[in-house]
Amino acid sequence: MCRWMGYRGQPLLVEELLYKTQHSLIEQSRHAKLGVETFNGDGFGLGWYDEELDPGVYRGLLPAWGDRNLRHLAAHIRSRLFLAHVRATTGTPVQETNCHPFTHRNWLFVHNGSISDFHQVRHDLLMAVERPYFNTIEGSTDSETMFALALTFGLMDEPMPALERMAGFVEEVGHAHDIEHPLQMTLGVSDGERLWAVRYSSEGNGKTRSLWTTVDAATIRALQPKNPRLQALGDEDRVVVSEPLGGLPGMWQEVPEATALVIQDGPDGVIAFQPQPARAVSSTA
Amino acid sequence: MCRWMGYRGQPLLVEELLYKTQHSLIEQSRHAKLGVETFNGDGFGLGWYDEELDPGVYRGLLPAWGDRNLRHLAAHIRSRLFLAHVRATTGTPVQETNCHPFTHRNWLFVHNGSISDFHQVRHDLLMAVERPYFNTIEGSTDSETMFALALTFGLMDEPMPALERMAGFVEEVGHAHDIEHPLQMTLGVSDGERLWAVRYSSEGNGKTRSLWTTVDAATIRALQPKNPRLQALGDEDRVVVSEPLGGLPGMWQEVPEATALVIQDGPDGVIAFQPQPARAVSSTA
Amino acid sequence: MCRWMGYRGQPLLVEELLYKTQHSLIEQSRHAKLGVETFNGDGFGLGWYDEELDPGVYRGLLPAWGDRNLRHLAAHIRSRLFLAHVRATTGTPVQETNCHPFTHRNWLFVHNGSISDFHQVRHDLLMAVERPYFNTIEGSTDSETMFALALTFGLMDEPMPALERMAGFVEEVGHAHDIEHPLQMTLGVSDGERLWAVRYSSEGNGKTRSLWTTVDAATIRALQPKNPRLQALGDEDRVVVSEPLGGLPGMWQEVPEATALVIQDGPDGVIAFQPQPARAVSSTA
Amino acid sequence: MCRWMGYRGQPLLVEELLYKTQHSLIEQSRHAKLGVETFNGDGFGLGWYDEELDPGVYRGLLPAWGDRNLRHLAAHIRSRLFLAHVRATTGTPVQETNCHPFTHRNWLFVHNGSISDFHQVRHDLLMAVERPYFNTIEGSTDSETMFALALTFGLMDEPMPALERMAGFVEEVGHAHDIEHPLQMTLGVSDGERLWAVRYSSEGNGKTRSLWTTVDAATIRALQPKNPRLQALGDEDRVVVSEPLGGLPGMWQEVPEATALVIQDGPDGVIAFQPQPARAVSSTA
Repeated sequence: MCRWMGYRGQPLLVEELLYKTQHSLIEQSRHAKLGVETFNGDGFGLGWYDEELDPGVYRGLLPAWGDRNLRHLAAHIRSRLFLAHVRATTGTPVQETNCHPFTHRNWLFVHNGSISDFHQVRHDLLMAVERPYFNTIEGSTDSETMFALALTFGLMDEPMPALERMAGFVEEVGHAHDIEHPLQMTLGVSDGERLWAVRYSSEGNGKTRSLWTTVDAATIRALQPKNPRLQALGDEDRVVVSEPLGGLPGMWQEVPEATALVIQDGPDGVIAFQPQPARAVSSTA
Repeated sequence: MCRWMGYRGQPLLVEELLYKTQHSLIEQSRHAKLGVETFNGDGFGLGWYDEELDPGVYRGLLPAWGDRNLRHLAAHIRSRLFLAHVRATTGTPVQETNCHPFTHRNWLFVHNGSISDFHQVRHDLLMAVERPYFNTIEGSTDSETMFALALTFGLMDEPMPALERMAGFVEEVGHAHDIEHPLQMTLGVSDGERLWAVRYSSEGNGKTRSLWTTVDAATIRALQPKNPRLQALGDEDRVVVSEPLGGLPGMWQEVPEATALVIQDGPDGVIAFQPQPARAVSSTA
Repeated sequence: MCRWMGYRGQPLLVEELLYKTQHSLIEQSRHAKLGVETFNGDGFGLGWYDEELDPGVYRGLLPAWGDRNLRHLAAHIRSRLFLAHVRATTGTPVQETNCHPFTHRNWLFVHNGSISDFHQVRHDLLMAVERPYFNTIEGSTDSETMFALALTFGLMDEPMPALERMAGFVEEVGHAHDIEHPLQMTLGVSDGERLWAVRYSSEGNGKTRSLWTTVDAATIRALQPKNPRLQALGDEDRVVVSEPLGGLPGMWQEVPEATALVIQDGPDGVIAFQPQPARAVSSTA
Repeated sequence: MCRWMGYRGQPLLVEELLYKTQHSLIEQSRHAKLGVETFNGDGFGLGWYDEELDPGVYRGLLPAWGDRNLRHLAAHIRSRLFLAHVRATTGTPVQETNCHPFTHRNWLFVHNGSISDFHQVRHDLLMAVERPYFNTIEGSTDSETMFALALTFGLMDEPMPALERMAGFVEEVGHAHDIEHPLQMTLGVSDGERLWAVRYSSEGNGKTRSLWTTVDAATIRALQPKNPRLQALGDEDRVVVSEPLGGLPGMWQEVPEATALVIQDGPDGVIAFQPQPARAVSSTA
């Protein structure tokens, strides 16, 4: 089922937000409050951007709460944009290649949710993945398949339409197999510049996985009132999460269903997210 | 914190009791009801006796619920006496050598509970371990130290007195460090013939970790009414657990505090457990 | 690159052949003599048949030489037919789902070798896997794909023709991609009754991965002259290996290239192995 | 048995020296040339200093050559001083807490070699470890015990004398157990400012584990002639290794036996290393 968080803003040590908050993602790996399961102990992943060209990725198959390497890494990795994810498997094996984020070139992708009856539709979905992206698939999750489909549908050129086509295609295939509500998702996606946070499910009606964002800098500062580094953050700095990391209600606003938040320089975008008919878009792999 | 179970009786496939009950130990690795934590995802261990001389041991550092090898093994290992344990660390690293059961020759040892302020007393406790047993210590848990102390105090010759001396020594050292309630424990111990289940804590007064046993064969049969193999079991066959595997209340009886249950051929023993002054007992290593 | 071994005969503790020979498979995981690499430390797997319906499978991602669980298991698992494999990855990740044996129902499958330029042909090969078998694929190896193709081509009904069609199809797709020698393999395959050992490569001419079998019981007995259990074995008991486990030259005979050995009750079969045109065979999944 | 490397100088991406040399440490994890074993696949560790107070540490129990997380980390961690180590166990379990470097406060410690008959002397050695350092011990290696003893003998105040006392004590205890040559070692030790490289064995006479250092900047530049980052290095930048990473003979000079190299600002020190009688030195833990 999973929980994830994303940050974009001034460079911070990852641990500031990953560990040192009231209800951190690490804590959510064993005591989540808003998810389907209270624990998410089937692996962990962190993808982060720094001065290098492509993001760094660390994925571990142990529960996040006990991962000592992660504790060290988070205390030393300084990043301006990162995505972290704790996993609860919906059936596929526990292994690093089934942990998020998935990555291709400068892109990162995390997912909370599932494709209903994935075993029935897996074959049809994978058949639609274009050859250059097919070989990026190393695991067996629905999430990784969604990423490969998004790449196929043009993620690297026009991200939002590609994600909408991916969602549309998953629903189309699901309906062809008589699956009523094929898709359940929140997504965290980044190219190293912008951070997209998407919240959508076929069922809708308040049944979509939770997704929250900080209202403004005051929220982040409230996470650690005595932390000078967080006190220095401003309104350009934003956190998006499956469930709030702490602070008071009112400091976090829920991302509406069928909506994508685009976190970028200047005003952030809030766009309606609507599945589109799928069509492959040729792109430089 | 941990949960464990033991079985002694007619040979059974381990999976019958490890997986195929209402509230199995595997389920308790993520949804325990009676323990300090609801999940025990910091590793797993199984020790089992068959026709071979010494027990087999399988220990994994992944949460039990996701361990596929364990699922296979449990479906193929047939055993007349086994101990299984799911771990919740009280601070020490997650690694196979910190998983229970610990083993020496034909002995197996599992523990639920802790030694209070273990870091303060660890040195004194380890220094009391006799040389031949000192080198059996591969991890860093309080549990393993307790096993090494029990061996030092004569476990292989006179098990109950040795366990009482071990408890007495842990309390003595704890009190010397101004620790009010040094010891919290249930233990599962076996030499391949008998199975000891001990329930004791320094604090007492209902604060000891839970320990239950089947009243009679009717309890085991009730765990799986349609399972012919379990229906064939008799009153000589017994299960002891941190928390009941299912069935109805009244089918399980709680092991009283400060008590040891000795499961053996013929009538099982119920003995008062009382910490004794410690003294090393020379024994063939 | 890998090394593997198979045994069929009177029930033995797995450790007798897996560990207790001069040049055991465990030893080959770090000091192979006949393979492409001297070490095969990218994981291990054991599949074994006993009285249960389907085989047990244990797969670990650690090098075999250091796997303590394996040492214990091998000392307790008694089996009449088993396959064991040590892995050297040809590029795909180190994870349990990329370890052999692969299994479906009562079938086990191990492979030494590779599909040349697998990344180029992977898509075409996977697209030919029939839907019921497609979902058995959990990893990303060429070996697992070969197993899924063999199942698609009727392995469960007519094993030899299915394996020949699989080989034929891999070569056909390879040639369509201008790959000169698409396939390199030895295979160990079993349904729990018979054990097939196949040796074939597109290149031939002595370039196929090694495969040896015991000439008769004298070979097995010579592996451990003082071991009464092995001394009790007869000519019906057979070992097949990537490289000999010990003993003297002349005690092992090489399986010729383009040949399949069928180890079964009564005389064993020696059959020419020749890739066939592929066609899917509908079969109960 | 192990191999290790250390670097001190201008900040570099760890991968420049860890991966991108002719005969990198990663390569030595499977094809070492000068060590006791050709492979060192029982785990890996990296400790590095950056702008943070204490070093970061990453330790994995998988062989280094297959560790994808390590590949990513090395491509993103920029450090002015780091130690990396690939492990070949001399008997103790494969687990992260048995991987080097060991760390305490701002100190890092790696070791190649062994304490002879460690099982005989382990008890006596551990008994001499002072209480504050005793609890830093999480594994079961001789190496970690040596680090704890060095801390006990004043490593944090007077490093060289402390290391000499540690060596002297190990020899004293060994001789008391009739062990002829108790100690075999090269050590990499750092406080974040200086980097000590020690080469000593009880046996001497050319039998000490190998240890080499770059003669000057020309050596480092020769490791990658086309790499502008390495071309920018100067004579203050130094690499020390179990075996040379590449380049030509003559570019590396062997550290003599019974010698310690102190890599620091200004001229580096070359000091005779001579075991001293041990005495505990009280120090702030």
